[in-house]
Order: sequence, then C-alpha cells, then structure tokens
Amino acid sequence: MRFTLEALAQRFGLELFGDARSVIEGVCALNPGLPGHLSFCAESRFLVQAKSTLAPALVAAERIPGYSGNLLLARNPLLAFARISALFDDAYDFVPGIDETAVVAGDVALSPTVHIGPHAVVEAGVQLGEGCFLGPGCILRKGAILGAGCRLEANVYVGPRCRLGARVHVLPGAVIGGRGFGNVPGEKGWEEIPQLGVVRIGDDVEVGANTTIDRGALADTVIESGVRLDNLIQVAHNCVIGRDTAIAACTGLAGSSRIGARCMIGGAVVVGGHLTIGDGVTVLGRSGVTKSLSGPGVYGGFPAVPVKEWHYQVARVRRLNVLEDRLSVLEKSRVPGAGDDKNGA
Amino acid sequence: MRFTLEALAQRFGLELFGDARSVIEGVCALNPGLPGHLSFCAESRFLVQAKSTLAPALVAAERIPGYSGNLLLARNPLLAFARISALFDDAYDFVPGIDETAVVAGDVALSPTVHIGPHAVVEAGVQLGEGCFLGPGCILRKGAILGAGCRLEANVYVGPRCRLGARVHVLPGAVIGGRGFGNVPGEKGWEEIPQLGVVRIGDDVEVGANTTIDRGALADTVIESGVRLDNLIQVAHNCVIGRDTAIAACTGLAGSSRIGARCMIGGAVVVGGHLTIGDGVTVLGRSGVTKSLSGPGVYGGFPAVPVKEWHYQVARVRRLNVLEDRLSVLEKSRVPGAGDDKNGA
Amino acid sequence: MRFTLEALAQRFGLELFGDARSVIEGVCALNPGLPGHLSFCAESRFLVQAKSTLAPALVAAERIPGYSGNLLLARNPLLAFARISALFDDAYDFVPGIDETAVVAGDVALSPTVHIGPHAVVEAGVQLGEGCFLGPGCILRKGAILGAGCRLEANVYVGPRCRLGARVHVLPGAVIGGRGFGNVPGEKGWEEIPQLGVVRIGDDVEVGANTTIDRGALADTVIESGVRLDNLIQVAHNCVIGRDTAIAACTGLAGSSRIGARCMIGGAVVVGGHLTIGDGVTVLGRSGVTKSLSGPGVYGGFPAVPVKEWHYQVARVRRLNVLEDRLSVLEKSRVPGAGDDKNGA
Repeated sequence: MRFTLEALAQRFGLELFGDARSVIEGVCALNPGLPGHLSFCAESRFLVQAKSTLAPALVAAERIPGYSGNLLLARNPLLAFARISALFDDAYDFVPGIDETAVVAGDVALSPTVHIGPHAVVEAGVQLGEGCFLGPGCILRKGAILGAGCRLEANVYVGPRCRLGARVHVLPGAVIGGRGFGNVPGEKGWEEIPQLGVVRIGDDVEVGANTTIDRGALADTVIESGVRLDNLIQVAHNCVIGRDTAIAACTGLAGSSRIGARCMIGGAVVVGGHLTIGDGVTVLGRSGVTKSLSGPGVYGGFPAVPVKEWHYQVARVRRLNVLEDRLSVLEKSRVPGAGDDKNGA
Repeated sequence: MRFTLEALAQRFGLELFGDARSVIEGVCALNPGLPGHLSFCAESRFLVQAKSTLAPALVAAERIPGYSGNLLLARNPLLAFARISALFDDAYDFVPGIDETAVVAGDVALSPTVHIGPHAVVEAGVQLGEGCFLGPGCILRKGAILGAGCRLEANVYVGPRCRLGARVHVLPGAVIGGRGFGNVPGEKGWEEIPQLGVVRIGDDVEVGANTTIDRGALADTVIESGVRLDNLIQVAHNCVIGRDTAIAACTGLAGSSRIGARCMIGGAVVVGGHLTIGDGVTVLGRSGVTKSLSGPGVYGGFPAVPVKEWHYQVARVRRLNVLEDRLSVLEKSRVPGAGDDKNGA
Repeated sequence: MRFTLEALAQRFGLELFGDARSVIEGVCALNPGLPGHLSFCAESRFLVQAKSTLAPALVAAERIPGYSGNLLLARNPLLAFARISALFDDAYDFVPGIDETAVVAGDVALSPTVHIGPHAVVEAGVQLGEGCFLGPGCILRKGAILGAGCRLEANVYVGPRCRLGARVHVLPGAVIGGRGFGNVPGEKGWEEIPQLGVVRIGDDVEVGANTTIDRGALADTVIESGVRLDNLIQVAHNCVIGRDTAIAACTGLAGSSRIGARCMIGGAVVVGGHLTIGDGVTVLGRSGVTKSLSGPGVYGGFPAVPVKEWHYQVARVRRLNVLEDRLSVLEKSRVPGAGDDKNGA
C-alpha cells in the first residue's frame, strides 16, 4: 500500500504542510525513522528527535519549530496516526474457509464469510456471526454465540452458552467462561457451588492474552461494550465491567465486583469482592481497592484512597525518620518529671 | 429436571414450610428471581430482596419475617443450595468415547467410560482412571497418571510422569508440570538446573484456568487432597499445599514454600520461597508473606503481620498527618534552648 | 545411564574423595537420599542431613566434618551438580519427524532434524532452525523465525514475523507476539493503535508457562540473549530486557520499560511504563517500580527505593505506635498554654 500525503490528508481530514505528492509506504517510530514512512510527534519532549528523524513526514498537533519536513496536523494526532497506521496493518486479513482439521458440529450454520482455522473445535449449538475469524486451536463449547466480525486469535476458549457481541477481539490463550471459584465447606472438605451463569460480552471488546473471565454462579458475568482488557487479567464470577472501561495487565477483580463505565484501571490492581467502583474512576497501577469508590476520581495505594491522600501518605512515611528525630529533640528538651506517668508526676 | 419441594426436602434432609407440591425446575438469583425456580437467602441484609423475589421458594437458615413464600430450612443453607443446584447443572455431563482427531499412544489402556475430546494428545505410558474426561486440546505427556473421574476441561497440559488423584478438576489452559525455574550462573550466563521431580496432586482438587504448577527440582511439588486453586496462580517447584487449603486468583507461591492444611489464602498474595505457613492460616488478599507464619491465625499486609497489627499499621499511617501536627504544636511550645543540640544547650 | 564417581570427576573437573568406582545411576534430594544416587550439600545448615543421607556420594564445596561418604568437590557445587543432573534428564530427548496431524504450510523448509508434534500449526513463511522441537498444539504464525535448537513445549503461540534466536525454550501456554495494548479514545470509544512491531528474542532464552510477551507498536519488543523469564509474566509492547536478566513469576512490565543486563527482578514486581532499570539491578519480590532505577543496586518496596531505605521504612511504620506513645507522654508534660495556637498563646 502506498499513499501520497495529499491522499492521507484528504482521507482523514488533516491539514497538510509540505510536499503533497510525497509518497508514504508505511509508518515508523520517530527515532531513527525510516525513509518513505510516516511518523508521529505529539509531545514537545520529542522535538529534538523530530528534527533528526529519517521519516519524510510527521503527524503532529501543531507546527514544530525548527522542523522542516512534511507535516500532517490533526486535532488528535495519536488518533489520526492510529487510523493511518491501520492502512498498513495486515494483521486482521484472512481468507474465509473451514480448515479440514477443524472439528465443527453438524448443526452449526457456517457462512462463507467465516474462517475456522486448523484444529479449532466448534461444538453443537454454536452460532457464528458473519465474518468471524477463529484462529488455530480455538474452542467454542456448546451453545456459545459470537456476533459478527469476532476475531479469536488462537487457543482461545469460550465456555458453554457464553455470548460475545460483534467485533470482539480475543487474544491467544484467553479463557472465557471457566468455572467460577465457588466452593462451600461440607462435612468432608470443599464442595463445589455449581456455576450456572455464563459470560456475556458486548460489542467492540478486546480480551488480552491468557486473561481469564469466569462464568457467573447464578447471574452472569458481564463485560459491556467497548471494554478493553489487557493480558493476564482475572475477572471472577459475577463481575460487571462497564462500557468503555480499560484495564491494564495482571489486574484481578474478585467475585461480584462492579466496575463503572469509562474507568481506567491500572496494572496489577486488586479489587475486592462485592465492591462497586463508580463511573469515570481511575485506579493507579498496583493499588488494592478494599472499599467501594465513588466516581469520578483518581485513587491509589493499598488500601486505595484518593490519589492526593496516597501521595501524602507515601511522603509522610518517607520522612518518618525526620519525625522520629524531631521527637527525640523534644524529648531531650522537656521539663524533667512533668507529666511523666512512670515517675508518677 | 423437575422436583417438588417435598422431594428436595426429603433428598437433602431439609425442613419444609409452605406448599410441598410446588414444582422447582431450576435455581436462580434472589433478585429479581424467576418463577418456578428456587433461590437462596442466607444473610439478613438480603431480607428486603427476599420479600419481593419472583422465586416461589427459598433455601434459608431460619424463617424470614414478612416473607410468605415457601421455605426450605437448612443448618448450612449455602451447602444445601449448592447440592440442590448441582441437580440442575449439566456442565459435567459427557458421552464417553475417543474423538477420531485425538492422538493417543498405542500403549494407553482406554476404558469405555473415558472421554477423549478433539485434538487431545495422550502420550505413551499414560494411565487414565475410569470415567476421566479429557476436553478438546488437552495434552498428557509421557507417563502421566490420572485417577478415576478426573476432568480436564480444555487445553490443559499435564507434564511427564505427573500424577493426579481421583476427581481432579482442571480448568482450561492450566499447566501442570512445566519446568521449575531453576537456574545457576555459569561462565557464560545462566545454566538450567534440571527439574527431575514431578507434580503430585491428591484427590478432589480443583486447578483454575491458566494456573501454572511447576514440577520439582529433585523432590516433587505436592498438592494434597481437597485443595482448591483459583485462576492464574503460580505454584513454583517443590511447593507443598496442604489438605483442603483454598487459594484465590493471581497468588504466587515461590519455590519450596509449604502451605498448611485448611488455609485460606486470598487473591494476589505472594509467599516467599522456603517459607512455612501453618495449618488453618488465613492470609488476606494482596498480602506479601516474607516470614513463616504459624497457624492458626489471620495475617495481612506486606510484610504480612497478624491482621490486627496490620489494621493498626494502616490506621497509624493514615493519621500520620495528625501526628505531624501534634509534633509541630509541641515544638512551638517547647522551652527555647532546652535540650537543643544545635544550640549546644 | 550409569557413571562411576571417577568418570564424573574427570568429566566435570571435580576433586574426588572416597570410592572412585562407586556407581551413580541418578541424582536425588539430600534428605532422605537414595542408594545409588548422587546428592548435593552446599550449605552448612544441611550438614546434619548430609550425615544421615542414604545417598552414597555428595557434591560439595569442601570436606564435610563428620561425613564419611564419598565426595565430589567443586568450586561451584550447584553448577557442577546441575551439569551432572543433566546427564540423567531425558526431558529434552525427542525423535525428529512431523506428526501427521500437524498442519504445516507448503513453503516451510523442514530439516530431518526437526520435530513437529501432534496438532501443531506452522503457517506460511515460517523458518525453523536445525533441531527445533515443536510440541503438541504449538502455533507459529506467518513468517515466524526460530533459530536452531529451539524447544516449544506445548500450546505455545508465536505471532506473525516474531523471531526467536537459537536454543530458546518456551514453556506451555506462553504467548509471544500478541497484540500490544495500544488504544486511543475516539469519538465513539476506544480505537486500536495498530501494533506493527514484532517480538525479537535472542539466544538461550527461557520463557515460562503462560507468560505473555506483546509485540511492539512501531518498534519491536526485545528480549536479549540469556534472559530467563518465569511463569505468568507480562511483558508489554516495546519493552527491552537486557542480556542475562532473570525475572521471577507474576511480574508485569508496563509498556516501553527497559530493563538492563544481569538484573534480578523478583516475583510479582510491577515496573511502570517508560522507565529504565540499569544494569545489575536487583528488585525484591512484590516491589512496585515507579521511577527509573540506576544500577547496580538492590531496591524494594512500593514505591521502590534502595533496599536499606525500604527496610527502614518498614521498621518505622511498625514502631509508629511507639512514636505515638512517646508523643503522648510529651504532650502531657508540656508547659500548659505555651505555643498552643487554639488557646491563642
């Protein structure tokens, strides 16, 4: 694929400065950059790199002082660059068809737009929307339902009757709809509490590699539309994650926790069971949420508190040595005997 | 499946109040509840929901004031409800047989009670107990041994010579018997320490999705009977986990740590290497255990301390600002010069 | 395999004390030990066990007082024992050949030294070095390149165009080259930032079970030679991990973090995005790195600080009750009224 800067500017509504006929054949990092490729400079700290890049053109938010190359100006330069990059991304291209090694139950309706890769398994009662891609080794258990345009990369597991909306993208090794961790002590040890719910996922959701989402106990586990989950995340039974919330890797949500819409949950966060996090909440990476948090707001630490309070806590702990020293000075200066319980004053 | 309340009461030894002939065709959540389904109300905070539920009958511990529906009373209502729920759970049903795409070594004895799913791999020397279920994509390496009634959901890996007892349930993507992380610096970088042990798992154990249990270096890694492991847990080489202990998701046990029997280890806990945790210990979620803990008892924080001490620590850190203020007040009031080292007093 | 002690001493350059013709048929743990097997005693705390071991010979650093069995002395006894152990380790033995259930693209050159196991998938353009082992269920996407002697245990995923050097060992369920977690808010929710880079891995690297390494956005994610990654680790897009660095399980590296060479990163550590950790840095388990760390040095805590400072912080927090008590004593003893703002003094 090759595009002139003029074509890119028109297609994405960008303001062009420089040589409109300059040809772009890909995108590249700013430093060192690549001839013939478009790069990106959105932050002032990268201005020095912009001046020496080998890339003949940049996407940016405004003119760059001292930079004499071509520019595509965008109000949201990262978004514009992402959309231009997608022109050069063939990661999602596929040829429809059913691999002869796939095992597909006889009752599954197969559109000619669907791809089912080698060694995939599609059990009875599964429904596949138009244009779905099941990569190698993916497993859809009985009655699972996928909306149009879903893409399961490889070795993805979708449990019985779990439902994915349209354009859900699941990375390799993710497990959707495993048994929730429900157990009750009986006379002879743990007994399982049957997990009769499913996982329901909305549209345009991404589920990261080796992430696990358990099915619900009685009600369902719900991931609303637009949610982005990174790798190695644990979503326990009966959690609800609200629309457009993004969660970074290694985070764990305990059972029945409810995350609001448009939240940003950092990496390696732990959210306790049965808690509610309001809409628009940001939780900093590595925090531990032990109480419900109302939104919007930014929280951090363990137990998580408003970020300002957390930063104060950290600073106060760091200067505890000063506090101890100040106290020692006072102790040396106090009036001997006065108020001293041990001396019986 | 349909049961009268009377039949359920008799089968599970419950006390029945209300219409004995009321027919139950499933179980449901309390709120909003479902007609024809049985629900559950064990905690007083759910009393309001109980009164408005659509469910015609509830399992509970005692009569519910103001609730006029049918009741099944149980000493342990959650346990009773779990057992009733299991009547309606078809998750473990299967038809025995060997899928034609499975690859099974010629020396493996196959009982007619066993199910081996599509694309499963069973290497030479494997022993499978009666009634085992190997879901799609499961891999049993050379000489692995499974007791009767094991269920490996899908894409489960069991390493060479690893041994599972009876009725072990392994969720998708779990890796049992990968190489332990043993390395020693040589002249040119790390060299592997061969991991010659295996993983030995007792009876009635559950292993969660994408959980990893490494094989031992010289001795074995041991998971005793009745243990419950949630998802995304790391069990390093030579760990021992005692009988009926339950561990929540995202927890990591470093090498050679020994967890006692009947422990409750929360989610995202880290247990350092070569530590011992006694029987009956509870470790709160997100704690970091840096020293051995004697049991029974409840511990929390990082480094983990008895829970009371941890709660005090958290409270003290939170009121450090008050401490600083109190100190400032004192400093302003002290007798000038007295005990002031800098002034040479 | 059977070796005399003399043969072992000669092969590995060890000093032999005792019966040179004693025959060794395996290795074993020190306690209780096994007849005919070699064991290992490197630390003085194991001296008591050495005296009662059933093993007829030990590898050690020096003569053991009171021990009368055979000895092989080594300057680095663990390294010597690891190398001897490898003689008895058949975990890496395999018979070359392509399983008939593997799906291999027609353009892939297959050396007779290569093993491709059941249900493996090798897509077009893949290059496999001599002696590679692809275990059951492994998936190599388009254009992936593996150097000589790579070993992918089972269910390993290698993304398009990702490159592994020689002798890379990947444990079951690892995902190399999944999509990086790059998203940008658009008008209607998150849009993907195409992840056009790959993962490049050097020689002699180990990647643990269910570990995930994302491909880069524009540049690549890089794992240099000699790196050892344990299980369930997250390496985000555009990270760089320097030569011979070892990282323990459950650790997460956020995007574009750079870890130096010869670092030791503990388990369950979190490293923030765009941070740099210098060469030779040790980060204690469960730390959270929020700022770049210069090397060499040892760091711990959250936010991570030099280990000494962290230990002081922990100790100070633990004695906060003492601080509060000391302050109370002072308050009781202070001159009433003096410096007391509330009283208007």
